[in-house]
Formats: sequence, structure tokens, C-alpha cells
Amino acid sequence: MTNAHTTITINTPPPYLSLAKSERLPTVLTIAGSDSSGGAGIEADLKTISAHRCYGMTCMTALTIQTPVKVYGIHVTPENVVSQILDANLKDMRCDVIKTGMLTLESIEALHDKLKSFEGDESKPKLIVDPVLVATSGSSLAGDELVSIIKEKITPFATLLTPNVPECFKLIGKESKLESMDDIYKLAQDVSDATKCSNILLKGGHIPWTSDGNKKYITDVLYMKSEKKFVVYKGRYVNTTHTHGTGCTLASAISSNLARGYSLCQAIYGGVEYVQNAVAIGCEVTKDTVKTNGPINHVYAVEVPLEKMIEDECFTAHDLVPSKALTTTESIRKNFFKYLIEHPYVKPHWETYINHEFVKKIADGSLDRKKFQFFIEQDYSYLVDYARVHCVAGSKAPSLDDMEKELTIVGGVKQEMQHHQKRLREEFGVKNDSYFENISKGPALRAYSRYFNDVARRGNWQELVAALTPCLMGYGYALITFENDITVEKGTMYHEWLDVYSSKWYREHMADGEVLLNHIAMTYPAEQLDTLVKIFGQVCELETKFWDAALEFEEEI
Amino acid sequence: MTNAHTTITINTPPPYLSLAKSERLPTVLTIAGSDSSGGAGIEADLKTISAHRCYGMTCMTALTIQTPVKVYGIHVTPENVVSQILDANLKDMRCDVIKTGMLTLESIEALHDKLKSFEGDESKPKLIVDPVLVATSGSSLAGDELVSIIKEKITPFATLLTPNVPECFKLIGKESKLESMDDIYKLAQDVSDATKCSNILLKGGHIPWTSDGNKKYITDVLYMKSEKKFVVYKGRYVNTTHTHGTGCTLASAISSNLARGYSLCQAIYGGVEYVQNAVAIGCEVTKDTVKTNGPINHVYAVEVPLEKMIEDECFTAHDLVPSKALTTTESIRKNFFKYLIEHPYVKPHWETYINHEFVKKIADGSLDRKKFQFFIEQDYSYLVDYARVHCVAGSKAPSLDDMEKELTIVGGVKQEMQHHQKRLREEFGVKNDSYFENISKGPALRAYSRYFNDVARRGNWQELVAALTPCLMGYGYALITFENDITVEKGTMYHEWLDVYSSKWYREHMADGEVLLNHIAMTYPAEQLDTLVKIFGQVCELETKFWDAALEFEEEI
Repeated sequence: MTNAHTTITINTPPPYLSLAKSERLPTVLTIAGSDSSGGAGIEADLKTISAHRCYGMTCMTALTIQTPVKVYGIHVTPENVVSQILDANLKDMRCDVIKTGMLTLESIEALHDKLKSFEGDESKPKLIVDPVLVATSGSSLAGDELVSIIKEKITPFATLLTPNVPECFKLIGKESKLESMDDIYKLAQDVSDATKCSNILLKGGHIPWTSDGNKKYITDVLYMKSEKKFVVYKGRYVNTTHTHGTGCTLASAISSNLARGYSLCQAIYGGVEYVQNAVAIGCEVTKDTVKTNGPINHVYAVEVPLEKMIEDECFTAHDLVPSKALTTTESIRKNFFKYLIEHPYVKPHWETYINHEFVKKIADGSLDRKKFQFFIEQDYSYLVDYARVHCVAGSKAPSLDDMEKELTIVGGVKQEMQHHQKRLREEFGVKNDSYFENISKGPALRAYSRYFNDVARRGNWQELVAALTPCLMGYGYALITFENDITVEKGTMYHEWLDVYSSKWYREHMADGEVLLNHIAMTYPAEQLDTLVKIFGQVCELETKFWDAALEFEEEI
Repeated sequence: MTNAHTTITINTPPPYLSLAKSERLPTVLTIAGSDSSGGAGIEADLKTISAHRCYGMTCMTALTIQTPVKVYGIHVTPENVVSQILDANLKDMRCDVIKTGMLTLESIEALHDKLKSFEGDESKPKLIVDPVLVATSGSSLAGDELVSIIKEKITPFATLLTPNVPECFKLIGKESKLESMDDIYKLAQDVSDATKCSNILLKGGHIPWTSDGNKKYITDVLYMKSEKKFVVYKGRYVNTTHTHGTGCTLASAISSNLARGYSLCQAIYGGVEYVQNAVAIGCEVTKDTVKTNGPINHVYAVEVPLEKMIEDECFTAHDLVPSKALTTTESIRKNFFKYLIEHPYVKPHWETYINHEFVKKIADGSLDRKKFQFFIEQDYSYLVDYARVHCVAGSKAPSLDDMEKELTIVGGVKQEMQHHQKRLREEFGVKNDSYFENISKGPALRAYSRYFNDVARRGNWQELVAALTPCLMGYGYALITFENDITVEKGTMYHEWLDVYSSKWYREHMADGEVLLNHIAMTYPAEQLDTLVKIFGQVCELETKFWDAALEFEEEI
């Protein structure tokens, strides 16, 4: 029998990442129960700690046999095992932060001994206690006896306690009505008194506050007793039942940030945002039969290593690269721009954008000059980002020709900015050069810039083109929409603005843009075309909001 | 008592990441022992699975009380608990791949029942078996009885088995001498026969092969019985004792890649490179007293979430941003270029670079023309990357002026490329335009390009400047070194090349480069200046190797 032999050379680590050789990874020891289905408990902790570029260690207080559906059983770890694990970890490993989750009577005794032994030690680990007394699904994981022992033996040693509302009631031994923020502040103070812990993060995930009509917020409140300070972390409420493990995750994220050296207030900001992102992005990992309370996405920001290895300049195992399937029908690819603007996801955003009242009001001259000034200022600031992102697109372009096209655009953008400067000087009396550098970005522009920068950082060339073209194409099409409505006097600032986007020069640019869009579709895997559709549509929406913001602008008096 | 109140608004998830909303994360169930110190076992598995953007589930066969120093104790999970965990996970959760590590008699029985029940199921999970019979440190974790039961009840169901050499010996029941690759191939085949598993990855981490004088390689060999194929994965041996958990990590990385849909051969490539990177980059997490066999760095490619949140365009909690300390002495900052080239890390590379034989041989005209042609071709191809990275630097530059400077350089680079084209046409008879696009990159250029691209992708503006300036400064300084050795005839191609880098125009560029280097040092946190030093030094080394490659070039006959 003859066998085939192939040799594949393994690459060295990426040079930039190697700069962190033998880095001192911040370490977090989690003392908690295992959730075999991976969404909560020790498993959620390890995922979170790793996603924070920290090093996780464990002490399992119990193995829970559970899934997001229910807890099927529990196997408690004997006290001597818990005690030995703590001994071994604290003897041989560095330990910056200890985080506790579900504690058993056995583990409380073992941990209490350790905490006492730290007393007076300057370099002792910080202790973050997530008092897992009531799980997200509402079932009680701990009896009353446990609550009083935790208050006696654990919480007085803690840097931070992170109870949700039902846990607060258990910790203070009574329930109360929460009808205002003041009630929440009071509750946090009561918990601090009852637990002898000076920092309380009261998690409001269970009480979505209603304000501003339909919008719902969730508020997490930090009470810092010694600084007499409340910090309210206010986030958007995400309407989902997939919140299995949020409590464990938050405490672990805070612990990781603290281990990295961030302050308590910063660490909580990072933790809350991480959890809210993980909930909002979500993931599907349960069977179709399971309908409720799935896990959150701990790895939403992690890149797939093998994808990056294959892109690496020194990757040598070329036979291993899977070929990208280009199976979309030719017609879609050859008329990708048309396909985009007719696509059900894009169409409503595109239509709103190119039929925008803002342009109509310029065409008939009825736009308030102050609103126009605001728009020009925001657009000036926008163009800086627009130029930046074209630089990135240039750097990612497949050929030198494509690269040059992007840089030519940057040159054009500079001209446009000079026009804007001229307008602002001549029409609006701007005198100072520093004026242009000090334009403050409004929320619509910030959201748009953020979108650009995020796609620039993580996306590929095709995705960048999809993000950059709506601006080019939409201005031209908006002018086509309103070309018969132009009644504003020639020679005025408004007419001159309209002239630019209906000029022969601009129409040629639009033709180039259409060619480019068709070109990127030809070079993109069929199954990922939806990503381009989504980006194009989202940017049309951002363009619409940019003009909305100009229309809605009111000068502060 | 009056308390202060602050409200901090939490940002929405980054828009690009939100494109993956409710993504179907690939899932891996790991059945193994827990390593409380976090470096191996279930903990290493979860870290690895998360670092691969997959979703990990667990089934703990035992809690081992261990650190990199030793195994202090073990607490075996009862069979009914293992069995219930498997039941729950397989009932409620999706499961793409099952990976096994340390198995107990209890867990083998429970798993065997499940494997039998899968028979005939098209969508059954793949099974990857890491037969943890001998740990990296050499101590046996499993008795002979266990080996025979694993061979009977587990391995015949496996997609892949990943034994190291001692485990191979245990699995075939005898030891043999390994003196050549043929011995390794034979061993892999024997293991396949003995275990009834058709794919064997024989891990060679324990037998560093010596070849090419001092260089050591490690080879992992994949045997695929049904395809009659051997694949040898050849990587550089890293001289370190920090290899705790490499076996668990490799099997988990392969499992994650398989869950993502990569082929077996691809999945192993990705796994091997990931482990070798994690070993080569390493981390410090044990106490100073622990000297040997520390864990590897599972999170070497993970970004710190809070750092990215703070950089976000829509970040609103500005009070939370820690201010960057600029405590370096003014003298270093004001003469940063001088500081760099005198720095002990940079100096040897800088000196070798600017005193390079290659330039001397051009100066005295003794350089072989074919070597010069090779250099010009490689340099032409280099300039494409150089332009690309200047685009990125432009996009990351702090001001519009800095952005424009970078783009001006891109214009200059294009001119330089045209000079190269002219040289190749006039002096070396190149006729075809496609010639320039088809230049194939040599290893020195590939390594240099890779460095550029990696810093461009992950680094900031200052780091990019540090990577881009050695080329500019070094060529000029090399010409200064050899300015009195120029004996080559005027009007020749060599003399003209020397003229460029000693021209007044070029000296002015160098002066700008020096100003820029001093400028970046002024805007950089003091404690991170070492990063700039390291990058500058490493790029000087890459420049040296680039000229080495030209000198060493031999035409293929």
C-alpha cells in the first residue's frame, strides 16, 4: 500500500501580537457552580474572563446539571475538596481578583478561612460577590440559612456586591415597593448596611423602567458608601428572553476589568456594556425545541483565528484555503446597485433618503439658514471621517489602481471641505480658522462616524465600498428627485449647492460608483452578499438621520 | 447625609459586530477533568473554544486539584451525574462536536451509551478523542485497565484521535524506537489499527527533531487511513517549559475548527498554529516561586473590551477615561530618533542595517547585476505594501494635516515605482506590463510585508510611524556610511540609485522623518515607549534581511 505524504509548514505567531510575549495576564479566580450547558456559572465566568484577555482559575462549589430549560440536578463538592482547591490556587498562582457565584455551605466555610487569613495583607485579592440567591429565571437557589451565613462570613470582606432586586430583598430580609429612583437608592443603602459591604451594584435588569413613551431603559445603580456617591448606569432595554447567565457574566466582567487595574466605576461601565452587547447580539445554541431564556453571546467581539491565519502574508498552506463560492446569479452581480436599491431591506431606507424634505426645502429655498449652517458644519466634520475611511479602503483595495482611486477621492473631499469653508466664511461670517477644528459632532454625525470607523476597523474592502457609496449615490439621486422643484434663485448659496450634486461632473462620479458596486459584488462570496445589503441599507438610514438632524436643528437661545 | 448622583449612559453594541445578531455559534461539548488552576482540562478547553468564537459546554469527569506544580488531589464525578449531564446537554443544546479529555471509568460507560445511541444518525456530533493517558509533565493519569476500555468503548467511534508518543505506546501496548519519519508513520498506522480509529494525529511535541544544524522542529503527523494519506505539520520548536495544557488546547482548537465547518486537515492546521502561537507568546500567571511548566496564553489574540469601548466614537462616559501618563524625560522625547538608534535593543540592528555590504557593493560597482535586478523587483513589490500601510497610517493620523502628509508619501512612492519600472525595462529588458504584477515575493519580503500588515491592522498611528520610518532613515544613513566609497562610474544605473538616496531632496525627507519620530514620542504614554523601540528595532532587522536576501540571491538554472 502506498500512502501520499504532504508537509505543511506552521507559521510563527503574528509579529505584533508577539510584542506581548510573556505578558503578565491579570488573573481572576471564580468560586461558583458549574453550569454544564455553558451559559451561566463557572462556564460563563471563564468565557467572560477570557473575552477580557484575563486568565481564569476555578473552584467548583457544585456541578449543576442544567440547561436554559431547567436545573435537572446538583452534585455538591465536598468541603475538603473546595478547601484544597483554594489552597493550591492561592499557593502557586497569582490571584488579582476572587469572584464568587453560587456558594454552598461547604464552600463558604472554606472561603471564610482564606479571607480571614488575608487580613492585613496589602496585596490581597479583591473580592467581588455575586450573591446568587435567585436565578434569572426566578427559582431560588439558596435557602434562608445560606443568606444569613453569607452575610456573616463573606460579604463583609467584599469590595463589591452585585445583587439583583429579589436578592436585595433576601439580603435585607423584607420586600418593598420600588416606584422611583429614590426607592432604588434607599434599597442599595439598606443592602450596604445589612451586608457590611460598602459598594453595592444594584442590578435593575428585572425592573425595566418606562419613560419617553415606549422606550424602556434598564438602570444599574452603584452605591459607594465611603464616597457618598451614586452612579446610575443607564442602558437600553433589549426585548429578549435570552438572558441566561447575565448575572455571572456581569460579575466576571467587572472582576476582569478590576484585575486589569481599572477603577470600580470604570470596571462596572465596561461590565455593563459588555453584558448588554452580549445580550443584544445574542446567539443560537439551543435546540429548536427550546424556546426560552437562551444564553448570551460571550464571544461577540472575538475573531475566528483560522480566518486570520489564512489571510496572513506568510501563510504557506495554500491548498488548505477553501475556495469562495460565487453562486449568485449573474444578473444580481451585473446590476448590483439596482439589486441593492430594490432590495426589501434597503428600499424603505433608500426611498426615505432620496426623497428627503431637507433637499426639497433647499430646492424651493424655504430652508432656515441656521439649519443649513448646522448641516454644512456637520458635513464638514463628516468629510474628515469620510476621507479617513477612504484611506482605509485604499489600504484594503485589491489592486494599486483601486488604491489610487480611493486616494483621488480623498483629494476631492479636500476640495469639498474648502467649498464648505468658503460658504461658512462668506455666508455665515466665520472668521477664525480654529472654528473648523472645533465643530462639535451632533448625535447623528457621531453615530454615522462610529459606523464608518467600525466597518473600517473590522470589515473588508467590499464592505467598506458598500458603506461609502450611499453618500455618493444618494445625493445625486435626491437631486434627480427634486430637479423639477428647484425654484430657488440662481446665484444663491442654495442654488450653488444644488448645482454641485446635479452637475455633469457629479453624474460621472455616480456612474463610477455604480461600476464599483457591481465590481465588488463580482468578487464577493454569494452567501455573504446579504452583509453588503445590510451595510448599504444601514448607511442609507444614517444618511436620512443626518438630514433629519439638520431639519430638526434648533439654535440654543 | 447628602449623596452625589451621576448618570452614565451605556452605549449600544458596535454596529459592525451587530451584523452577527443571533448568530448560530458552533458548539463544542467537552468531556474532561477540571484543572482548578485554569491551564489544562475543561478550563483550557473553554478558553480555547471561546477564543475560536465557538460556544463551549461541559461535562466534568472529575475535579482535579492541581496547579502547574503538581496534581494535589482528585474528586471523581459519579457515573449518574456524568450520565445526567450528557442527557441534558444532548437533549436541549445543539452539539456539533464532542471532545473528550481525561476520562474516568464512570464517564466512559455513560459516554459509550450515548455514542451507541447516535448510530445511524446523520447529524450526530463529531467525536474528537484526546487520550489523556500521560500528561505533558510525564506522570501517568490512567491505568492499563482504562486504556483497554477506552479502546473498546470510545475510540472506534472517534473522528480523530490525538495521542502524543507515550500515549501511542500505551495504546498499542509496546514501546518502539523512533529514529526517522518512517518510524513515526508506522507508529501512527499501528495506533489506527489498535484503536479502530481511522484518523490519527500523532503529536510530536515530545520529540523535537533536529535538522539544519541547531534549528529544531516539532512535527505533528496526521494519518488518514481511508484516504491513505499522511500530512506532516512542521513548526518551529519553542524552547520553553511553559507548556502546561497544550494537549487539551490542541484537541479543543481542532474541535472548534471542525465545528466551524473546516475540513480535518484545515482544522488541524489552525489548531497546531494556535497552540504554537499560545506557547511562543506565553504568559506569566504563576507565583514567582513556581519555576516550571506554566500555562500557555490562550487569549493572545483577544482585544481588551473596555479599551475599545473608550475609543468608540459614541462613548459618552468621558470622565471614566484614565489619563495617559507622559512621564518620560523631555530629553528622550525631544531627541527620540537619536534615543532609538542608540537604544541597546535597536543599535545592533540599526548598525548592521546602515553598514550593509549590499550598499557597499553598489557603491564600488561590484554587485552582481542579477542580484540588483532581484532587489529592484522585490523593492517594487515592497513599495505596494509600503503605500498601503501609509494609507492606513493616514486613516489613523490624529489630524487632517498628518493625514495629507501620508498621502503625499503615497504619491512619492508611485514615482519611485515608476523609476523601478524604467530600470527594469531599460536595463533588464522587461517588455511586458504584466511582469510587474507577477513578481513573486521572496521570504524576506513576505516577512516584512507581514510585519507591516500586522502593525497596520492592530497598531495605532504612532506604532505605524515607528514601523514606516526605518526604511526612510536607513537608506539615507547607509548612503552617508558609504559616501566616500563610491567608485562606480557616473551615469550608470548603480550611480543613479546612489544619487537618489544622497540627494538634497532625500535629506529633506529624512529631516521630516526625524521631526515626525520626535512628535510621536511626545504624544505617547511613557510606559509604552518600549513598544515603539521594539517595532523600530524589529523593522531595522527586517530591512537588513531584505538586503541579505538580495546578496544571497542565486538565479535558478
